[in-house]
Amino acid sequence: MKSIADIRMRGFLKRTPVKTLLKLIKEHSQLLSSEEILTVEASGRILAQEIISPVNVPNFERSAMDGYAIDAESTFGATSYNPLMFRVVGQITPGQTFDAEVQSGEALSIMTGGPLPKGTNAVLIAENAELVCNQIQVLDAVSPGKHVGQIGEDIKKNQSLLKSGRTLRPQDIGVLSSIGLKNVKVIRKPEVELLITGNELLKPGEQAGGVKIIDSNSVMLSPLIKRDGGLLTAVHHLPDERDLLQQHLSESTADLICVTGGTSVGIEDYGPILLDELGELLVHGIPMRPAAPTGFGLIPGKSAGAAKKVFLLPGNPVSCLSAYDYFVGRSLRLMGGRSADWPYRTKLVKLATKISSQIGRTEYVRLRIENERAYFIAAGGASILSTTTQADAFMLTEEESEGFAEGDEVLVWLYDE
Amino acid sequence: MKSIADIRMRGFLKRTPVKTLLKLIKEHSQLLSSEEILTVEASGRILAQEIISPVNVPNFERSAMDGYAIDAESTFGATSYNPLMFRVVGQITPGQTFDAEVQSGEALSIMTGGPLPKGTNAVLIAENAELVCNQIQVLDAVSPGKHVGQIGEDIKKNQSLLKSGRTLRPQDIGVLSSIGLKNVKVIRKPEVELLITGNELLKPGEQAGGVKIIDSNSVMLSPLIKRDGGLLTAVHHLPDERDLLQQHLSESTADLICVTGGTSVGIEDYGPILLDELGELLVHGIPMRPAAPTGFGLIPGKSAGAAKKVFLLPGNPVSCLSAYDYFVGRSLRLMGGRSADWPYRTKLVKLATKISSQIGRTEYVRLRIENERAYFIAAGGASILSTTTQADAFMLTEEESEGFAEGDEVLVWLYDE
Repeated sequence: MKSIADIRMRGFLKRTPVKTLLKLIKEHSQLLSSEEILTVEASGRILAQEIISPVNVPNFERSAMDGYAIDAESTFGATSYNPLMFRVVGQITPGQTFDAEVQSGEALSIMTGGPLPKGTNAVLIAENAELVCNQIQVLDAVSPGKHVGQIGEDIKKNQSLLKSGRTLRPQDIGVLSSIGLKNVKVIRKPEVELLITGNELLKPGEQAGGVKIIDSNSVMLSPLIKRDGGLLTAVHHLPDERDLLQQHLSESTADLICVTGGTSVGIEDYGPILLDELGELLVHGIPMRPAAPTGFGLIPGKSAGAAKKVFLLPGNPVSCLSAYDYFVGRSLRLMGGRSADWPYRTKLVKLATKISSQIGRTEYVRLRIENERAYFIAAGGASILSTTTQADAFMLTEEESEGFAEGDEVLVWLYDE
Repeated sequence: MKSIADIRMRGFLKRTPVKTLLKLIKEHSQLLSSEEILTVEASGRILAQEIISPVNVPNFERSAMDGYAIDAESTFGATSYNPLMFRVVGQITPGQTFDAEVQSGEALSIMTGGPLPKGTNAVLIAENAELVCNQIQVLDAVSPGKHVGQIGEDIKKNQSLLKSGRTLRPQDIGVLSSIGLKNVKVIRKPEVELLITGNELLKPGEQAGGVKIIDSNSVMLSPLIKRDGGLLTAVHHLPDERDLLQQHLSESTADLICVTGGTSVGIEDYGPILLDELGELLVHGIPMRPAAPTGFGLIPGKSAGAAKKVFLLPGNPVSCLSAYDYFVGRSLRLMGGRSADWPYRTKLVKLATKISSQIGRTEYVRLRIENERAYFIAAGGASILSTTTQADAFMLTEEESEGFAEGDEVLVWLYDE
């Protein structure tokens, strides 16, 4: 246990600049190891290997259309004035083979995807051939290779298909499936544990009453953690008891722990002290409104691996939302191999109202967008969650900014992705 | 059973314009009914009720800061030259009450979220008060209501909070939780069944060989269906057998069925015929490349409810992808109460290469984006799925378009959302 001055009830002595906190997060959010999962479940996951195709796709010549497999040369000279007749000697559907060799003057009915039989090198499409009594009339010459899918035309054996680090698309896992990869290596999901502290809190779904309030933070954070590629492994609602919090912080095997509530300088705010005792309290208090009592630190993991990252999130819901969104989400995305950038869409809009901001402080400003103009809803109001449901977008003022005038163009993030 | 001419092996007699198909999809993709689910699981779902708050949030006056609850009037006149002393007579933490009334000259230690005790109307923040021997020194007057969260300051009783039709955000379900709504009414998810047909197909994860190929369509469509708010209830891999397909089409209780493969004019293409026999084949064949053999129709449901929507998707993977994405996804989003628009981000880019397009045909063009310029990869190539993994974006040419010149600015959809 290191000794630090107990800051409870005496306020934050020193706030860490937001940029420093972002830098620390980047530094400590190392890429996680990989795991092998089923290819069919890998869409949206981050690839942790290069994909080299072990096979040609297709690995046989196949028809690209429904029609007739034919020897192209034998159609040369065919015109509507000089139609040539071919005897249809059988049919090939996908997955089937035709053992005999097709002879000159013969054709074989073939369906899209069917393997081209020996003796043919082109496909005459069904629409261009009139079938009469087992014979087709060919009115135009067909060139060799016409409507034939060549071996390896989609994917060549030993071709590099996908690079490590890629976010797998639906069509990517289709490709992986088609080259026979049952499993694929992806970055494992960062495991997250939520410790929701507060004697005043009721669990979601309980009936409110008296001076108790219902926890909304765990409800809000769950889908955000999922969005950022995290795996929420546990949610614990804890009373403000030092020993209980200490036990959970020590014993958790998660990659990242969010403690909500008890992160400030009140007498029941054990988060910062415990984090300092059990590991390292890197940041406590930032010049951001709301979310000033945000903290960040590390607790050594049980194994020799990376330390557990611990975020202390204010209990007030808007503070909790903005601190999660600006800091925790970024850490999860980095650990999971994703872009650090926010997944929200951005937009440039003109301000319909002026926004003042204190120099040296980052403000999380909620805005309503109407007719391409942004109207101020709130900057403070840590406990007024409804401002984030009324808002269409939010912006962050820079620490150096004194604010914006009406008519200024600003970059906003749209809540609806 | 109605009678239609059997179009197999004679080609499409008439193609339905893409716009007509889109209109038919809109007409038949009625909004589904609602269901009640747990609020904590409702993020991303579409609200099917208006939310009126049954309570005030908070329903008591609470401290917005850590500090001291005090009677504001009793601090009037305090300055650093004339500090006033207050006796700290107890403390209040969130979830606790203080039964006695605070008297003049007294203060109560209070934590953020703690209910204001009787006799106090303001909070002096901890940082501004020096605690010495159970007394605090007040150096500045505090105004009434300072740092006090009023009853209903977040949400007022009977206030309309959220409108029906809204896509629920993480913070929305936080708000719903805080007003005590354990359950919430949302539009139910459209249920989707996949019928993957083809004798040539192996299931994903099986080992390829000979003239068999591994199904990639089900692998690709699963995450897309999820993205569009659908619930994939079953995937059946079927050989090209008429009776089996008929049985599955008849017996399915899904809202929407995708048949892949067997949708064209080949001899084993039973999809269109069965759809016509069992219900109504509204569209078969569209002027789009790839995906020309796309079909759409309806089969009456078992109950009096809406008919089952059936999409016939070409078996070639790029055709399947583009037909799903342009038509099926839209139908699912409309049934689920979502925007018909594509969820991909759009971008205006300049073409680095010219793109020619046949008038009267919509082409699904795959593009690589480099330095803000778009390079053509492929327009046709129904079976070359790797074109959609190499591409960064795609565009659709209009039926009226003859194509684009190098340098033209075009709107593209980015595969990575």
